[in-house]
Amino acid sequence: MAYINENYFKLPGNYLFAEVARRVLAYRETHPAADIIRLGIGDVTLPLPAVSVEAMRQAAAEMGHRETFRGYGPEQGYDFLINAIINHNYKRRGLTVEADEVFVSDGSKSDCGNIQEIFAIDNVVAITDPVYPVYLDTNVMAGRTGALGPDGRFAGVVYLPSTAENGFAPSLPETPVDMIYLCCPNNPTGTTLSRAELAKWVDYARKNDAVILFDAAYAAYITEPDVPRSIYEIDGARDVAIEFRSFSKTAGFTGTRCGYTVVPKTVTAKAKDGSRHPLNPLWNRRHSTKFNGTAYIVQRGAAAIYTDEGQEQVRENIAYYMENARIIREGLTAAGYTAYGGVNAPYIWLKTPDGMTSWEFFDHLLQEKNIVGTPGAGFGPCGEGYFRLTAFGGREDTEKAVARIKEG
Amino acid sequence: MAYINENYFKLPGNYLFAEVARRVLAYRETHPAADIIRLGIGDVTLPLPAVSVEAMRQAAAEMGHRETFRGYGPEQGYDFLINAIINHNYKRRGLTVEADEVFVSDGSKSDCGNIQEIFAIDNVVAITDPVYPVYLDTNVMAGRTGALGPDGRFAGVVYLPSTAENGFAPSLPETPVDMIYLCCPNNPTGTTLSRAELAKWVDYARKNDAVILFDAAYAAYITEPDVPRSIYEIDGARDVAIEFRSFSKTAGFTGTRCGYTVVPKTVTAKAKDGSRHPLNPLWNRRHSTKFNGTAYIVQRGAAAIYTDEGQEQVRENIAYYMENARIIREGLTAAGYTAYGGVNAPYIWLKTPDGMTSWEFFDHLLQEKNIVGTPGAGFGPCGEGYFRLTAFGGREDTEKAVARIKEG
Repeated sequence: MAYINENYFKLPGNYLFAEVARRVLAYRETHPAADIIRLGIGDVTLPLPAVSVEAMRQAAAEMGHRETFRGYGPEQGYDFLINAIINHNYKRRGLTVEADEVFVSDGSKSDCGNIQEIFAIDNVVAITDPVYPVYLDTNVMAGRTGALGPDGRFAGVVYLPSTAENGFAPSLPETPVDMIYLCCPNNPTGTTLSRAELAKWVDYARKNDAVILFDAAYAAYITEPDVPRSIYEIDGARDVAIEFRSFSKTAGFTGTRCGYTVVPKTVTAKAKDGSRHPLNPLWNRRHSTKFNGTAYIVQRGAAAIYTDEGQEQVRENIAYYMENARIIREGLTAAGYTAYGGVNAPYIWLKTPDGMTSWEFFDHLLQEKNIVGTPGAGFGPCGEGYFRLTAFGGREDTEKAVARIKEG
Repeated sequence: MAYINENYFKLPGNYLFAEVARRVLAYRETHPAADIIRLGIGDVTLPLPAVSVEAMRQAAAEMGHRETFRGYGPEQGYDFLINAIINHNYKRRGLTVEADEVFVSDGSKSDCGNIQEIFAIDNVVAITDPVYPVYLDTNVMAGRTGALGPDGRFAGVVYLPSTAENGFAPSLPETPVDMIYLCCPNNPTGTTLSRAELAKWVDYARKNDAVILFDAAYAAYITEPDVPRSIYEIDGARDVAIEFRSFSKTAGFTGTRCGYTVVPKTVTAKAKDGSRHPLNPLWNRRHSTKFNGTAYIVQRGAAAIYTDEGQEQVRENIAYYMENARIIREGLTAAGYTAYGGVNAPYIWLKTPDGMTSWEFFDHLLQEKNIVGTPGAGFGPCGEGYFRLTAFGGREDTEKAVARIKEG
């Protein structure tokens, strides 16, 4: 008699984007001529950097000849990519990351979702609220939470409110936690944690034997020099933090799929008998047993962005999006809104006006301005009363949307 | 205080191929001039079909233009690939599979490893012995087994011996089981189950409310017309079986990464309250939460093999390998060995001579013939006394190896 994993039933439906789509469709049906601008979904729109296209075309050609064909590669990724990652993102910034601490994957969504598997099922999870839903959903599926309560919170999870009131810098938890998910720059708020704030978390993790799961998927969008690009810029983080990085937003790889995770050999956790064990071999075992490496062609495309030419192309794309972010943020402010983010991240997080709920504002924006954004409440209870706009649209659409908002 | 998932400690090291590599290296050091032929690892050596290379080069070019760029795709795969899969592998054979029953992935190793996550942790797992290690290892990691015993078996797992004595057609289990992993054509034995044998398992699953997890990664190698290519050729299988397929061996995608899993909407399992639930939505939730789709470029490369030209190229490659298989199988038989498989699969499974253990024969073959194969004991206790050779080598190497074996 096969039984199912009933933890899946604790999850509500994939409500957020489905409901957004439903409301947009309904509006379209009654207003077929409406020129709807979408600043909702966090997907890129600029093409891949030319260096990546060329590298992948070249790699595909290699696969067509016996002499240069590649079969199974190392599950952890090819050295050419791992070394480029380390040199560019860590060594140049004075940080130590070794080759066998980097695990190339098909994207950081997979890694952020899978990492919890190497931890005991009774660890307590802490997540910032609001945040990217994958951290929480995967822990619910694994059975690391209780049921969803009427307050929108899962029992057994420690939520770390991250709102305008605390400057989007959540306080340390009041009860013990074991696995702490931090997303910085944050999706959806577009805000970052300062060096001092990050140090506070590293210090907590060290004192409490907790592990920080640090999602830095948007690190490439940081413009202010003082904001840490990597958690390893904080002293002591190599003992307590795992870092996730992605090519998705950095280089437009959302449909090409490549990311990586850094698991320093110095990060440890305990067995129930009190013995201490490094997490790196556990993740290596998980990664090599349940994954079989990222396509060679894709890894060549990813490595290409670390050439001088590639860096130039990536910088141009990011600058394009961040100019969109500036236009949205300044436009919102000029129109009387209170807006956050958009300086070190491609997301702008605005306070809904007049005490509207997130969904009321969604309807307002759709119906009055024909603009689609994302209700903040979809990212957690503390997202209620906020709204996310993204900088990933085209320039013309972005400018048009802002002009409509300013029209009042 | 973060604790680790201690189930990982139940796993022995990734012993098999590491030990093979160690012994080969040691031999090389003392015999630097030896011309060692490798017929051990199950990786392909022929280049990708030209249609796939061309399709991927074209798709990479599309990604370089804003008009044809693709960001996030459907997590389940693009329609162009799903429809081609259904038409070619199911519809043409008179089988019904619907578009929302196919989940494209980065390879069937991932799917075979991840599928257990949607099942309850106290289900009893049955696996054929010997078999591809991923099924067992992922269940061990999830906590669905006890400890490894001195007999090489994990407590709580039902092993289904599959040896020459029973014609590699395992008997039904004597105690109840819930999740049954079948690999057909089998890795490592290279044997297949007949229609009647498969029907026996489908019947068992229907009567006992079990689910069959059917790994058909080598289906494209079946040459005999009577052997089922899909478990759905068996009446009633759509109620109890999930099928895994791969482009890895079919089209040389071991380093390009694409596979798919079929979860019919009619396959159900129970909740503890006795209610019955389809597995398709659970797998869809798992797939879309912990995975973000296969690269667009790779999906284009995979779809290309379903053109007439692609089918011709794939058939040629498979014929090349299967001619190697014939050469090995007939050579072994002529040399006095008892060999199995190699007719509907690229693996030849031989009985070690003179009561040698698998590892003794490994050393013998390496030292006397300079041929590397894989000890059968590495695939499960019932693999002891057997040895795997693969047909994925070059023709010249394969012929040379067989000539050496025949020399006596």
